[in-house]
Amino acid sequence: MTRRRGTTRLGEFELIDRLIKPLARGFPGALDLEDDAALVRLPEGSELVVAADAMVAGVHFLPDDPPGLIAGKLLRVNLSDLAAMGADGLGYLVTFARPAAIDDAWLAAFWHGMAADQARFSVHLLGGDTVSTTGPLSLSLTILGTVPLGTALRRSGARPGDEVWVSGTLGEAALGLRILRGLAATEEQALPLVDRYRTPRPRLALGRALRGVAHAAIDVSDGLLADLGHILDTSRVGARLETERLPISVVARSVPDALTAALTGGDDYELLFTAPPAAAERIVALATAEVPLTRIGVITAEPGLLVLDRDGRPLSTSARAGWQHF
Amino acid sequence: MTRRRGTTRLGEFELIDRLIKPLARGFPGALDLEDDAALVRLPEGSELVVAADAMVAGVHFLPDDPPGLIAGKLLRVNLSDLAAMGADGLGYLVTFARPAAIDDAWLAAFWHGMAADQARFSVHLLGGDTVSTTGPLSLSLTILGTVPLGTALRRSGARPGDEVWVSGTLGEAALGLRILRGLAATEEQALPLVDRYRTPRPRLALGRALRGVAHAAIDVSDGLLADLGHILDTSRVGARLETERLPISVVARSVPDALTAALTGGDDYELLFTAPPAAAERIVALATAEVPLTRIGVITAEPGLLVLDRDGRPLSTSARAGWQHF
Repeated sequence: MTRRRGTTRLGEFELIDRLIKPLARGFPGALDLEDDAALVRLPEGSELVVAADAMVAGVHFLPDDPPGLIAGKLLRVNLSDLAAMGADGLGYLVTFARPAAIDDAWLAAFWHGMAADQARFSVHLLGGDTVSTTGPLSLSLTILGTVPLGTALRRSGARPGDEVWVSGTLGEAALGLRILRGLAATEEQALPLVDRYRTPRPRLALGRALRGVAHAAIDVSDGLLADLGHILDTSRVGARLETERLPISVVARSVPDALTAALTGGDDYELLFTAPPAAAERIVALATAEVPLTRIGVITAEPGLLVLDRDGRPLSTSARAGWQHF
Repeated sequence: MTRRRGTTRLGEFELIDRLIKPLARGFPGALDLEDDAALVRLPEGSELVVAADAMVAGVHFLPDDPPGLIAGKLLRVNLSDLAAMGADGLGYLVTFARPAAIDDAWLAAFWHGMAADQARFSVHLLGGDTVSTTGPLSLSLTILGTVPLGTALRRSGARPGDEVWVSGTLGEAALGLRILRGLAATEEQALPLVDRYRTPRPRLALGRALRGVAHAAIDVSDGLLADLGHILDTSRVGARLETERLPISVVARSVPDALTAALTGGDDYELLFTAPPAAAERIVALATAEVPLTRIGVITAEPGLLVLDRDGRPLSTSARAGWQHF
């Protein structure tokens, strides 16, 4: 953990000692964050899985979101990248660019939220950097995970005839964001939808279980159509999607534009994956009450994504606009 | 490599394809930056070394610094963390929060600079994230390296009787920054000093050679006194430093306050290390014309840092002020 010029606030060192260093305990290679780098030994027969995501106040979260939930979201969106690869979490590094308006109480709430979530997901803080900024709070997290050699799920493995599956329900996070931005909603609508926006559920157990089962996988962060598009592009295949089958919750359906949100809204962090029809029984067995698994379409040899409405007709392009303009 | 909401500029995808993806070529586990994460296999008998540093425009570099040099500095300061651990470079991830004022030409220059330096240091881009920000350009880089199991250099290994060594020369980067901020200087002074500020030389070969030789090591990023303080704190020892011995270049001596800069200025990215007197001959043999190695003091059992002036008297506290206030 580096502490450098630009970190000007009095008591910063104490804050680091009190709030941040405890998150490295339990991982000897983190060296109590007192060295220039951390040391990580991988289990034999495994390889490292590594990804990084940035979040900026006002762009990826709202400045008045609870700080503990911002920390949790930062960790969870990165864990979701591991889930999409079928990997297990190991540790993470955080860089934190702090505007003057962020006070010590805010920082304490942020790191307490991070501590709670790292315990929940069995990962440890390995390092990072705290600096100051004249702009909005800017966060970056690099996640490290492991996967048995050669078993990582990829986007590029989809094959014609594969069925397309998605976990959980779609569109709720985007609807939650719209509510935070002013869409009228009852408390019964707002609470679960805003929670979906603020607190992603990385599907790590599912990702692990899909190793050797799914042909291709991705997490739904950009929106269903965009992320399915990534699978199709890298796999050089097409797909037919049936909107009638999309898992949309009762509460989402009670809000306007739930279908558009399910197709083009981001931040769901569900797993979207393809698998041969022969694997369907195994996949169905992986579904739980909390994380249902739904077949929503099929991979085709012909390129392009055909989205069919409830009457089996191609969906109008306006309903797909979000695909290009998220 | 994730591309998300907030990345709004037309042509961003093309820029990523043209400028960024080529930096992942040659590292198969980077998966052409087309997956949720990268896969990294470690050489047998080695462990991963990982660190992250952030840089913000106006805090860690000047907004009008050449973009290619900003990219290079971001990579080099992280490589310097690897050097301090005695590690070899492997790959890196970058998160890039882009203000609207950063145009495509600036981006192209930034990534071309990164490409040149990653080739120079034999590392590859493994992933990252590009987002937008309403604030200043905010960069973060996570560096991955490897070291033979159990051989990493640490800050905490200094022992009483060790000699204190430093590579290269000290204070030039801080003087270069002062010149960029308006200190009067001739071109003969400005060119080399500003270059030292903008383009750190991570001492990777030296760090590697010090495995099994040095007892403790750190890179000089905060300033000599501060970084020696880190070694003393983690090693629970003290030191006596002779300012007369500090390696200060002729050009640095031609500028006011060179000694203060050498003691308290940051950004030198030289290696500061301790080793037993018996290792002196081996260490001297590692010195080159470009990277001299200089004995500047000794580790003591008694805690505290005694800084002696050319007459062998303790230095006044005012000259050491930068230690607390960098």
